[in-house]
Amino acid sequence: MALWVRFTRDGTEGFGTLDGETIAVHSGDLLAGATPTGATLALADVALLPPVRPGAFIGLWNNFHAAAAKQGNPIPEFPLYFLKNPRCVIGPGAAIRPPAGYEGKVLYEGELGLVIGKRVSNADEAEAGAAIFGLTCVNDVTALDLLFADASFPQWARAKGADSFGPIGPVIATGLDWSALSVKVALNGRVRQDYPLSDMIIPPARIVSLISREMTLQPGDVIACGTSLGALPMRPGMQVAVTIEGIGTLENAYAPAA
Amino acid sequence: MALWVRFTRDGTEGFGTLDGETIAVHSGDLLAGATPTGATLALADVALLPPVRPGAFIGLWNNFHAAAAKQGNPIPEFPLYFLKNPRCVIGPGAAIRPPAGYEGKVLYEGELGLVIGKRVSNADEAEAGAAIFGLTCVNDVTALDLLFADASFPQWARAKGADSFGPIGPVIATGLDWSALSVKVALNGRVRQDYPLSDMIIPPARIVSLISREMTLQPGDVIACGTSLGALPMRPGMQVAVTIEGIGTLENAYAPAA
Repeated sequence: MALWVRFTRDGTEGFGTLDGETIAVHSGDLLAGATPTGATLALADVALLPPVRPGAFIGLWNNFHAAAAKQGNPIPEFPLYFLKNPRCVIGPGAAIRPPAGYEGKVLYEGELGLVIGKRVSNADEAEAGAAIFGLTCVNDVTALDLLFADASFPQWARAKGADSFGPIGPVIATGLDWSALSVKVALNGRVRQDYPLSDMIIPPARIVSLISREMTLQPGDVIACGTSLGALPMRPGMQVAVTIEGIGTLENAYAPAA
Repeated sequence: MALWVRFTRDGTEGFGTLDGETIAVHSGDLLAGATPTGATLALADVALLPPVRPGAFIGLWNNFHAAAAKQGNPIPEFPLYFLKNPRCVIGPGAAIRPPAGYEGKVLYEGELGLVIGKRVSNADEAEAGAAIFGLTCVNDVTALDLLFADASFPQWARAKGADSFGPIGPVIATGLDWSALSVKVALNGRVRQDYPLSDMIIPPARIVSLISREMTLQPGDVIACGTSLGALPMRPGMQVAVTIEGIGTLENAYAPAA
């Protein structure tokens, strides 16, 4: 069990493990073998970055029984996914901003994120599970009014891929049992999502196994496991906090340009 | 006007400009300033690679008047796009392979590809046009039976993102006037697509400008401009050749595993 963070300090990027309020700085490759340098830093003295910069950022739709039941969707056997623009990733504390000129609804969706640690292709569930390096929190932000703006073509990539629409973090947690955890989202401190991950339809190792049959996954890729009930629009100035016990709280402001 | 290629020879990657059957090897950054080393190689002595490895690979749907009219689709004002898995890119001569176990239809779609040369965000059409480094051929391969396999969620990312489903190349051509060109696709030598790029609904600079308002584009990103009439399933063993005058011919075999 470790909590991995990436940070910047005095213009230099680094990474390490977080213990309370102290970071043990590491060198090497966060995903492929890191060693402590012996240096430590106070968490308060650094700015956290996204814990990983994915080359591919996959998001699932309709992967919780409670949401499927409420919305009348059938239970999928294969992960139903879209690709988020991988550059939409931001870290804890960074602002979520709608595109210039967009005045429609922008939804938060609190989700469990899987961080891939090894190249994985056509893997069975055991190999796929072993390829998951750790877990993070994801806010899968969506410009709802773009999604169905064109009746002939649902615009998933566009609605979910705008710059800043992919907050992840604050850490990558290793050694956690996802099935015992819940995802909570609070808007300005008021809890609006609170759902158990045990309600997931297709669980993490199976998601990775099934996707890997068609698309090779690489270290650093992130898969957001889908959301459940309670995803709502944000109002300007709101603080959105996604909390998963053992991972921590990913907090971002929704801050349209003035 | 130059034709840029990336290649491998004796296990080493390189790049340069192609003149007839000779490559003038360059060093530096293909997209940001390259200089000739003085060395030359015979095209026959290298294996061509994809001319670029995009960080984002965008594909347009419904961007030609002839196809929109035939299929009864409305004329879009904003590019209707999906994201292809950027790692699905393969180069000239590499095999297109369906995922293991998939026995449905696999379509070719010959398209013009735009290769982004500069970071571009919220750009007007002049700036966006200047950010297009050059043009390439794209075969936007689609596993048709996956696209609508789930009635509740069209699976664009999955159907178009399988490993090997993104042939691009053989070169990036600079200094070409796209509007005078045609896209031709031949299956085993028989022409099945032949459409003028002047029939495009949203032209290249406007595509880049509009997408850049929401999603920052980076050097090396590829945008496939959509296809027109004549996209059809491939049969195992077929050679698929996408030709755009001035760019050349991108040829790949459709070769399911035995």
